[in-house]
Amino acid sequence: MSAKEVKVRNTVLAGGKPTICSAMVGKNQSELIEQAETIVTKKPDVVEWRVDFFENIADADAVVNTASSIRKKLGDLPLIFTIRSIKEGGQEIPLDESGKVELLKKVCETKSTDLIDYEVENDKADIDAIKQAAQQNDVKVILSFHNFNETPSEKEMLNKLEKASAYKADIGKLAVMPNNMSDVLSVLQITQTAHTDLDIPVITMSMGVDGGLTRLVGWKFGSALTFAVGSKSSAPGQIPIEVVRQLEGYLSNDS
Amino acid sequence: MSAKEVKVRNTVLAGGKPTICSAMVGKNQSELIEQAETIVTKKPDVVEWRVDFFENIADADAVVNTASSIRKKLGDLPLIFTIRSIKEGGQEIPLDESGKVELLKKVCETKSTDLIDYEVENDKADIDAIKQAAQQNDVKVILSFHNFNETPSEKEMLNKLEKASAYKADIGKLAVMPNNMSDVLSVLQITQTAHTDLDIPVITMSMGVDGGLTRLVGWKFGSALTFAVGSKSSAPGQIPIEVVRQLEGYLSNDS
Repeated sequence: MSAKEVKVRNTVLAGGKPTICSAMVGKNQSELIEQAETIVTKKPDVVEWRVDFFENIADADAVVNTASSIRKKLGDLPLIFTIRSIKEGGQEIPLDESGKVELLKKVCETKSTDLIDYEVENDKADIDAIKQAAQQNDVKVILSFHNFNETPSEKEMLNKLEKASAYKADIGKLAVMPNNMSDVLSVLQITQTAHTDLDIPVITMSMGVDGGLTRLVGWKFGSALTFAVGSKSSAPGQIPIEVVRQLEGYLSNDS
Repeated sequence: MSAKEVKVRNTVLAGGKPTICSAMVGKNQSELIEQAETIVTKKPDVVEWRVDFFENIADADAVVNTASSIRKKLGDLPLIFTIRSIKEGGQEIPLDESGKVELLKKVCETKSTDLIDYEVENDKADIDAIKQAAQQNDVKVILSFHNFNETPSEKEMLNKLEKASAYKADIGKLAVMPNNMSDVLSVLQITQTAHTDLDIPVITMSMGVDGGLTRLVGWKFGSALTFAVGSKSSAPGQIPIEVVRQLEGYLSNDS
């Protein structure tokens, strides 16, 4: 396994094949269990719990207990635990940043998840604290950057992924909104550059309808994970799992 | 209809939506009729007859007669008549260039097709003669460039399409082979540039498995036609019609 691969349970995140993540956005445990049951039948490679949708997020025990219930439904599928901030496309939550950090640390300490997603623009001290708790409990850290308004310059996008690498993330992630089709090509171009130059795997996507094609073909440029709809969409432009999966045979050199 | 659109029968070639062409490669009339019958059920927007596969190509009357039989099977689907040279990915044929030009002129004069594909690197005198016969009979001309070994520089690829435009083609076409994924991005980039800058529609594709994604998403960058498999593949990397068609709903701003 190269340095650019991350293995979580039996799933390798590396780019070069379409590895698919499907998100759960339920607001309570029963909705989440139902979504987990649906998602598993769609056979994603990874499942993400978008905890910012969970109405009991302020109750750490409820969060840990729900993670454990979800875990039982997922079999050996890796779970990403994500609290997305409003600024980066998430829901409003009753926790401030330090409450969020405490919850993420507790989720690591209870080994309630396989991966945690945290935003790369957060304070370095918070990132370090989460990284430490994660590492001690064999939880992988994705440091992510989102821009729902535009696509930054290629240099700036690479900087965000380099920052994730410099902060010792296990994986870097970037999701941006295109204003034209050149923006979409920029994302594919920097994906290839980051995949070649960085020492961690990267996950990239251009969002919305125009960016949707990156969710289908990003893996050809080295993106290690694509988000597709298993139960409910969690971001603009997501495409059903089975559509993404079907293309593999036509676009893969192995076929 | 803008200057960048070409309307053939009821089909508009313009880019911005996936307009699909399927090729017939039968070696005799009965194979071709069978392929035409199959292709029509797959609902392409355009059908191409790759006449270099036709064993009776030296018999102009047989060609015209077969075109007429194919025409009857196609209903209102536009037909492209193409004799692809070996150098540009075609079959060996018993006609020299002047025999080929005479056949193309006759096909125009008998109004046996809607569009003719001829290579842009041919002699200007031949191109002019074909263009004149085509114009007099309301047949549209596609001037095409192929490179099965590599992807030329972006400047060179744009030059080929500009040349097609300067020669007064109705449509310019470019099909090249990638050696890496950056080559694939180059083709999408010049497609967008040509679609914006030229006064004729362009058809572009990157071939092979790595280029295959351009056949799925080229229309998002302005490619006016994509070649997909209806009956039999006619070039490396082609994907079934129904797969290309299915993506329109997910990648289209109209949806």
